Amino acid sequence: MPSTMEVYFLPELATAQSLAGKTVVVIDVLRATTSIVHALAAGAASVAVCETVEEARNLAAGLSGAVLGGERQGVRIEGFDLGNSPLEFNASVVRGKTVIFTTTNGTRALRKAQLAGRLLIGAFVNLSAVCHAVAGADSLALLCAGTNGEVTREDVLLAGAIVVELTREQGGSEAKANDQAWIAADAWREAERGLKGARPLAETLRRSRGGANLIELGMERDISIAAEVDRFDLAPEVSTSDWRVRVLPRTG
Amino acid sequence: MPSTMEVYFLPELATAQSLAGKTVVVIDVLRATTSIVHALAAGAASVAVCETVEEARNLAAGLSGAVLGGERQGVRIEGFDLGNSPLEFNASVVRGKTVIFTTTNGTRALRKAQLAGRLLIGAFVNLSAVCHAVAGADSLALLCAGTNGEVTREDVLLAGAIVVELTREQGGSEAKANDQAWIAADAWREAERGLKGARPLAETLRRSRGGANLIELGMERDISIAAEVDRFDLAPEVSTSDWRVRVLPRTG
Repeated sequence: MPSTMEVYFLPELATAQSLAGKTVVVIDVLRATTSIVHALAAGAASVAVCETVEEARNLAAGLSGAVLGGERQGVRIEGFDLGNSPLEFNASVVRGKTVIFTTTNGTRALRKAQLAGRLLIGAFVNLSAVCHAVAGADSLALLCAGTNGEVTREDVLLAGAIVVELTREQGGSEAKANDQAWIAADAWREAERGLKGARPLAETLRRSRGGANLIELGMERDISIAAEVDRFDLAPEVSTSDWRVRVLPRTG
Repeated sequence: MPSTMEVYFLPELATAQSLAGKTVVVIDVLRATTSIVHALAAGAASVAVCETVEEARNLAAGLSGAVLGGERQGVRIEGFDLGNSPLEFNASVVRGKTVIFTTTNGTRALRKAQLAGRLLIGAFVNLSAVCHAVAGADSLALLCAGTNGEVTREDVLLAGAIVVELTREQGGSEAKANDQAWIAADAWREAERGLKGARPLAETLRRSRGGANLIELGMERDISIAAEVDRFDLAPEVSTSDWRVRVLPRTG
């Protein structure tokens, strides 16, 4: 278990300095981090995360055979090959390719973590793999992307699930954690009770702000996809020197 | 039940405009709002909330028989009659008097709500009274003070308790609420389970950031005082024209 665990409900609640040197997991369940995991699981060589559409287009112009993906206001960007639905990033489209990806909130969160010692991509679809990858970290920070500066429940729930999973083995002994970590853990425990009852995770995500947005855009199916806990056993890492996300060989 | 309910984990997550015209409850459990309720319950004529120590001193200079209370970094301000411990505001000291009060985080939250249609003071010690007072509101916002820009669990738990209480009667039908409201409600439900078990509310508050601060300052007793749910049956209101908090005659 990490000796300190911090959750930030929004990038705005963290500073680059507060994340410096730490192991940071960026969380944007609906849908950026879910889609990035899908892309790499489908065999993409790497995912290059760009802040702006221009940056993405310029990068694509200099690379042969790259796939352009991303969204603004939830919708595919004009001229891009793909939007931001996890299932678009399938093997027939991305295998062996560099995926150039831009999305509003997820990218902002990643860039906030520019001084991280290690930077990972977290989603429900790779929950256990992420927990395994960060269990030995000294200082762990879980950075929720939110939506346009608003806290989103789906991201906080995943942060809570990671905190609960990492503290579970300690038999309830106290980790050093900030209040946002305890709030997230409590929220996840409450949601988990629902899972054992009648309410699947997808139903809870549907009622989140991000879920409501997707339903409005006619992309409800993406919510169920994002709720497939542990569909993939990989914990992608982001290089902050070139903002490429890759699956590194597993150690330990 | 209000038709919309919003929780803000920090004043920084709200704007004066987002609170305009709404019924707003300011929450600073450890300890500003708890102390204000104590002062009025002990018979203070009103509590004048000041942003700065200078403002408080100037106001006191122009008022005969006023009582000066407040803290900086948790400690009583030099030359002030009282600090910010709820029990200091007892009848022998404050009855019939104007209490002039300044505290860092609580005051900042109140001032953020300057455009509120109605502005109330919320604490665990007056939980039911506040719920009763706002149950008929159209748009309700619960504004947590936090500590120096950091989210604090004790404030979020009280916000959650208010949301849970207000939605309880609806048999689970969906209120319109932001994700922070649902997260707070989930966190409170999880804490409430502990209450039915072995962990009293004071124990949970002790483990919060604000609780840890008070323990460090040797003021652990204030935590138990802040955890006395429904000790008082009053819902003080703040006038945003003169920043005085008073107990208004109950209507309805």
